[in-house]
Amino acid sequence: MSDERALQHALDVEVLRNLGQRYARAADARDYDAVGALFHPDAVIDGLRGSSTLEDYLELSRNTPPAYEKSMHVLGDPLIELEVGADEATLDTYAVVYQIGATREGGGNSTLGVRYLDVVERRDRDWRIRRRRTELRFMT
Amino acid sequence: MSDERALQHALDVEVLRNLGQRYARAADARDYDAVGALFHPDAVIDGLRGSSTLEDYLELSRNTPPAYEKSMHVLGDPLIELEVGADEATLDTYAVVYQIGATREGGGNSTLGVRYLDVVERRDRDWRIRRRRTELRFMT
Amino acid sequence: MSDERALQHALDVEVLRNLGQRYARAADARDYDAVGALFHPDAVIDGLRGSSTLEDYLELSRNTPPAYEKSMHVLGDPLIELEVGADEATLDTYAVVYQIGATREGGGNSTLGVRYLDVVERRDRDWRIRRRRTELRFMT
Repeated sequence: MSDERALQHALDVEVLRNLGQRYARAADARDYDAVGALFHPDAVIDGLRGSSTLEDYLELSRNTPPAYEKSMHVLGDPLIELEVGADEATLDTYAVVYQIGATREGGGNSTLGVRYLDVVERRDRDWRIRRRRTELRFMT
Repeated sequence: MSDERALQHALDVEVLRNLGQRYARAADARDYDAVGALFHPDAVIDGLRGSSTLEDYLELSRNTPPAYEKSMHVLGDPLIELEVGADEATLDTYAVVYQIGATREGGGNSTLGVRYLDVVERRDRDWRIRRRRTELRFMT
Repeated sequence: MSDERALQHALDVEVLRNLGQRYARAADARDYDAVGALFHPDAVIDGLRGSSTLEDYLELSRNTPPAYEKSMHVLGDPLIELEVGADEATLDTYAVVYQIGATREGGGNSTLGVRYLDVVERRDRDWRIRRRRTELRFMT
């Protein structure tokens, strides 16, 4: 058991690092159950359309007709702050979101520069996002 | 020796994470020996041009005149699945491939959104790709 | 204390991985004190404008009117070379730098493909960049 602490820390960091990548794949698949599973039920999301609860965010996402055919969320490495053994961490992630094939007339592809600022919490061994703030850095 | 397991796991994850970055640099340098060294000899590659053995893939790559002057494979963080102590892992990597300076008349630069789905295996302490599936997500 | 070595290595790799992300945020905020804090005082920077000392590099950065309104440095995962327990490492990082809103007439947005080749050194437990070479791979 003597290597538990180091191993646990390494595994924690991996889980945190994977969170963003799992989000990218869930969002690109428009699988909102999978998106929801990355957040705690009481999570708050400050998005580009204002602040909302997880429930409202997922419902809006499910019910809004997509403005483009597909997307690709390409994330940089997250900047992770996690004390060894702590149950809370922050992730600061730069991402480029490619939106391909606009569904509305006159629309084209667009590229968004986005920054995700997440507070992530471990509850019952399960790391999930408790608060996400999304900042739009640029759009072309 | 008591910290071997944790250290080994951390080192394994690093090797896996570096695989994609080594691929990017080898591909951009058009160094197909270096590309080949990232795969097991019996690897199968399901690429944008169909499925092939490593040998065929490398031969085709070597013999096809490049369609552009240079490339840059910018990879996101891989989504890694590796059990502690296992000899097999999967990597799911988003990448943006910039192709610069088309060599054919009328061609321009292009940007490709690519997803690499790799099965990676450790043989004799050596982690290499055993199967790669490449998906094109977008091209502009 | 038996897990110290593994834990230390994992923490070292995290610090190295975070260096680039901290650079990206400092550069995008045009916070040159924060940029400077990532380098040793005697660091040498071989940039796109030639080789310079850290001091000269920071002074030039502070005194040059920005050619665009904002930037976003989106970095891929660094390729890290670090022996367990060593005090020196190399980082090889691919990045895409988005420059948004040209401040000069006739200018537009531009996208740069950049590669950072860093020699990083630990002094008094503090990992910082001792030498950076910046290569421009493409510009559109």
